[in-house]
Amino acid sequence: MDHHTRLSNALAGLPVDRPPVWFMRQAGRYMAEYRAIREKVSFLELCADAELACEVTCQPVDRFGVDAAIVFSDILTIPEAMGQEVVFDQGHGPRLPSPLRSLDDVRALRQPDVADALPVVPATLRSFRAARPHVPILGFAGAPFTLLCYMVEGGGSRNWLHVKRMLFSDPATATELLDRLADVVGDYLQAQIQAGAAGVQMFDTWAGMLSVEDYQRFALPAAQRAMARVSGAPRIYFTRDTSPFLHLVTQTGADAIGLDWRVDMARARAELGAVPVQGNLDPVALYAPAEEIKARVHRICDAAGPLGHVFNLGHGVLPTTPLTGVEAMIEAVKERSSPR
Amino acid sequence: MDHHTRLSNALAGLPVDRPPVWFMRQAGRYMAEYRAIREKVSFLELCADAELACEVTCQPVDRFGVDAAIVFSDILTIPEAMGQEVVFDQGHGPRLPSPLRSLDDVRALRQPDVADALPVVPATLRSFRAARPHVPILGFAGAPFTLLCYMVEGGGSRNWLHVKRMLFSDPATATELLDRLADVVGDYLQAQIQAGAAGVQMFDTWAGMLSVEDYQRFALPAAQRAMARVSGAPRIYFTRDTSPFLHLVTQTGADAIGLDWRVDMARARAELGAVPVQGNLDPVALYAPAEEIKARVHRICDAAGPLGHVFNLGHGVLPTTPLTGVEAMIEAVKERSSPR
Repeated sequence: MDHHTRLSNALAGLPVDRPPVWFMRQAGRYMAEYRAIREKVSFLELCADAELACEVTCQPVDRFGVDAAIVFSDILTIPEAMGQEVVFDQGHGPRLPSPLRSLDDVRALRQPDVADALPVVPATLRSFRAARPHVPILGFAGAPFTLLCYMVEGGGSRNWLHVKRMLFSDPATATELLDRLADVVGDYLQAQIQAGAAGVQMFDTWAGMLSVEDYQRFALPAAQRAMARVSGAPRIYFTRDTSPFLHLVTQTGADAIGLDWRVDMARARAELGAVPVQGNLDPVALYAPAEEIKARVHRICDAAGPLGHVFNLGHGVLPTTPLTGVEAMIEAVKERSSPR
Repeated sequence: MDHHTRLSNALAGLPVDRPPVWFMRQAGRYMAEYRAIREKVSFLELCADAELACEVTCQPVDRFGVDAAIVFSDILTIPEAMGQEVVFDQGHGPRLPSPLRSLDDVRALRQPDVADALPVVPATLRSFRAARPHVPILGFAGAPFTLLCYMVEGGGSRNWLHVKRMLFSDPATATELLDRLADVVGDYLQAQIQAGAAGVQMFDTWAGMLSVEDYQRFALPAAQRAMARVSGAPRIYFTRDTSPFLHLVTQTGADAIGLDWRVDMARARAELGAVPVQGNLDPVALYAPAEEIKARVHRICDAAGPLGHVFNLGHGVLPTTPLTGVEAMIEAVKERSSPR
């Protein structure tokens, strides 16, 4: 079975010879090929250059034979396109020096035309399709709520005080920002499908810091609004802490659900029914001996069952991950055959 | 109804006039009275002095009229009593300069006699009982797995690479350490009950970074082993990310379950049945306007129902929390009357 059929069948719940495998942040620092390119250009320069971005997107495809690529980019291209400055300090996370704290701040943002303002990822997708036509490539974007987190807090945070203050004290401003973001996110994902993405993933990385009540009030409707603008290819929705919201995530309208490593796969299957899922090995398991990794991969695949499962990590691969661990994971998935 | 009856009834699922209320880290930096004492002594000096610890334990009781105190101390007194150095750098979390990485490291630890090695908390409990006899006081300890996290990693961590490496590559060493910790934790909690604690809480703060499989293999049996050594007063088990394990936490043997703010109270009740619960307002909600706080408190109490609910935050109160927010929360709980 070719890579395209394997991925599209798994995301549609149709039979596959084995689960397809790709993994979040598969183009990244743990690969020497990637570090070699990053010695020449900064992270932002890499995100801004479709040919270089295509090159690093190809690296894990070529080295590991994964079943899908994910386009190299960053979720903070959207805040930038809306006029908010984003800085990546060496060795630190992103920083947004002018965080949004009021309705005036929100209204001062541009509502960009996606084709004009965000051309790099579609160009990267087209380059990859020409370079590796046998491998499907996924597009992605941050979910509206997760983008709001960075834009309001001004960077990553432990407690997200500024974000929650806005949600709890000025929900109208938060909702206006979420609505605007949802429209950009949706149009951006749609543009990626038009550029040839075989599917798209929406990362709601920080939704898991919300109570279920606040998730339903803020993150979920915004994700729904974004998803509703996207069609023509499977749409995957991922949260870093899926468990408290597991009974709600399909309300986003997503075609498949990305599960973090804390979710028990068997329980997720029971809760979600026939909805295809993606995941969910603990990224730190890749530091374990190969036999331990393989046993974990097989347990996850057994719990997921043969239909509607895309194998993945439960969060992005870590920068110090040993290549041997990645190889063991992929080998284990490739040992699978369905139906078992 | 007096404070003692209200707390013990709620923790036994018996009728109360309203839910009792206390909150995690209620003696702490957000209070000027506490900061005044910390100007004179360091955190470790405060933890080592039963009279001063009793004084700060009394502060939130006197100011807010909460229904229970929790003894002022730190969970890292146990690693110290076992011979591992613990350092608190100003403005940072704890640091353990000689982390445990091998079976030899684990076997070099002392297995302390709790009465000799950990006398301060029992003394603080006795002082509090004499000073505020009308208010019940809770004892606490870190759960074995959460203590292992600090002892192996050497401090807090984002990904807990060293901890998970030990679990995945050398589970026998991890299990030996967990067993030893469980015995100390259990004996320590029992000593606190003997010193007059009206109940004890075991904090499994970091268990939530584990997959359900690893929770069942490591954190859960260790918590069970510790709990099994404790009797004579209600035992509460808290995890910071309760949701993935909600169907398992009662297997610890705990009499009540502390819920973090991400768990939906109504779903927790449905899952846990008649087991009393404690929680679970988002600590950041205390920065919201009073009316918003009160509405959230009432929704949690409504979802919890009148029996077997101790009101609490879903995690410790934050150092910059406004007192007005704390007051609004407590006022809202005190507005409750049961049965509704």
